[in-house]
Amino acid sequence: MSLLVIGTVAFDAIETPFGKTDKIIGGAATYASMSASFFQKKMNLVSVVGEDFPQEGIDMLNHRGINTAGLQIKQGEKTFFWSGRYHEDMNSRDTLDTQLNVLSTFDPVIPESYQDCEFLMLGNLMPSIQMSVLQRLSRRPKLVVMDTMNFWMEVAMPDLLQMISMVDVLTINDAEARQLTGEYSLVKAARKVLSMGPRYLIIKKGEHGALLFHGENVFFAPALPLEEVFDPTGAGDTFAGGFIGYLASMNDTSFDAMKRAVIYGSAMASFCVEKFGLERMKELTEAQVDQRVQQFVELTDFEITLV
Amino acid sequence: MSLLVIGTVAFDAIETPFGKTDKIIGGAATYASMSASFFQKKMNLVSVVGEDFPQEGIDMLNHRGINTAGLQIKQGEKTFFWSGRYHEDMNSRDTLDTQLNVLSTFDPVIPESYQDCEFLMLGNLMPSIQMSVLQRLSRRPKLVVMDTMNFWMEVAMPDLLQMISMVDVLTINDAEARQLTGEYSLVKAARKVLSMGPRYLIIKKGEHGALLFHGENVFFAPALPLEEVFDPTGAGDTFAGGFIGYLASMNDTSFDAMKRAVIYGSAMASFCVEKFGLERMKELTEAQVDQRVQQFVELTDFEITLV
Repeated sequence: MSLLVIGTVAFDAIETPFGKTDKIIGGAATYASMSASFFQKKMNLVSVVGEDFPQEGIDMLNHRGINTAGLQIKQGEKTFFWSGRYHEDMNSRDTLDTQLNVLSTFDPVIPESYQDCEFLMLGNLMPSIQMSVLQRLSRRPKLVVMDTMNFWMEVAMPDLLQMISMVDVLTINDAEARQLTGEYSLVKAARKVLSMGPRYLIIKKGEHGALLFHGENVFFAPALPLEEVFDPTGAGDTFAGGFIGYLASMNDTSFDAMKRAVIYGSAMASFCVEKFGLERMKELTEAQVDQRVQQFVELTDFEITLV
Repeated sequence: MSLLVIGTVAFDAIETPFGKTDKIIGGAATYASMSASFFQKKMNLVSVVGEDFPQEGIDMLNHRGINTAGLQIKQGEKTFFWSGRYHEDMNSRDTLDTQLNVLSTFDPVIPESYQDCEFLMLGNLMPSIQMSVLQRLSRRPKLVVMDTMNFWMEVAMPDLLQMISMVDVLTINDAEARQLTGEYSLVKAARKVLSMGPRYLIIKKGEHGALLFHGENVFFAPALPLEEVFDPTGAGDTFAGGFIGYLASMNDTSFDAMKRAVIYGSAMASFCVEKFGLERMKELTEAQVDQRVQQFVELTDFEITLV
């Protein structure tokens, strides 16, 4: 099944307790598509960069089978830039700098060859741009997964709510679920979100795992306990990419498939945080992914038979 | 198998965002033994109260089959009292008042009828008192589980370390694991704790579940996502009581049994927080426990077969 990923392709400068980077390649769509490419071979990307974006970044994507026909390169303009510093506990961060650059006028163009899209990942981006992508597809995809963040709740809530009402799966973190609904209890927050439109809600809790809600059903996937979290940047996007990549590769949108997809997404995210930026994803092998998923099986496996 | 629980029997006064209580019955040994009684029928308690402790408190324990021959009642003295206020998120609390009273001179006496003890729960208490209980048993129990808290790391670290070296299972929370070892990563912290003596370590993460470490093995049990956490007091003790109660009832100390025991402990703790103090535990039925454990099975169940 064809998978389309839209979101940012960016430069990031990251500081963690373990060190800092100069401008390195990042962005929601970069992380998500790299992650999805471990499952789904036919993949299309829609995004925008400036003329300062290096060819090696595009080569990296193409090398993983990601079609970049929908990646606009704006001459005379600069790529979106984000800079942030993580706190000691790695669960919170300060944004040091945001330069929208090409993103401020981004008008997504869907190449004709992308119109067979069955699975759509709307990575974190202005809700109005996520909307225009959905509108520019001649046929609604079978499954639309949307990621967003607290910033859009503050500056574009009406657009965001409209967008949320149109997707099948929403992925947000625990703080965002609380902010979006005004409910502290994640169970109550989930019920409210599911009444806004999505059939499925994933609440990402970082090192504390992820919850999948669907009707009255709940599934919990832990995060893998790691020796060291080196750089959490892109972990949520990597999770989402693994999630939808797995579903697309199986062409299955059942609840049981979603549960497995949450485990695959969690496994991918556990790799992402092991090194700075995309370093770990670039060297990752499919055998390592299988091995890590097996660790998740062992981490959660118990046998209780009630009489 | 005979199970002995030692710890505090206390009065608590609790404030949460949902309300406040006058002096109600609490204490680590009370919560742990009440919880364990759902699994293990032959149960003995060692603790101390003052003459102000009501007969109905003792009746409550006896009604659940808990032998209180080892519960000293000190005439002319007052029961240990703790008062605390929970913050909005229920994950942190301030101690408002602590009156040691009878606890300051507590010298545990083990009735002769308790000497068949095979499973020993050392509830949170001064490490030196935990030690004297272990020394006063004529035979080392088959399994010794110890719970403790950050306070003893601050005022009695040498005693605490000696005590830790003598137990089979240590249960502490994530902040305590970090404080005890100086390691932020729970994987690294666990490795250090396991090198101090215990064969098993349980790190309790409250609403984020619990981790069981044994050698290079890790098992994770989620907390049940709840509509509302009403009062977290005693949840850790209730967890520990369910854990050892299950193991004692099965007479099994294998890693597989421990994994199941962590699920049973988590299920018991999920009830404890639903009402103030011991209210929920008093009305709980065994059928409800089974039903809740089934919810844990469904919460974590997924099927991945790697080729």
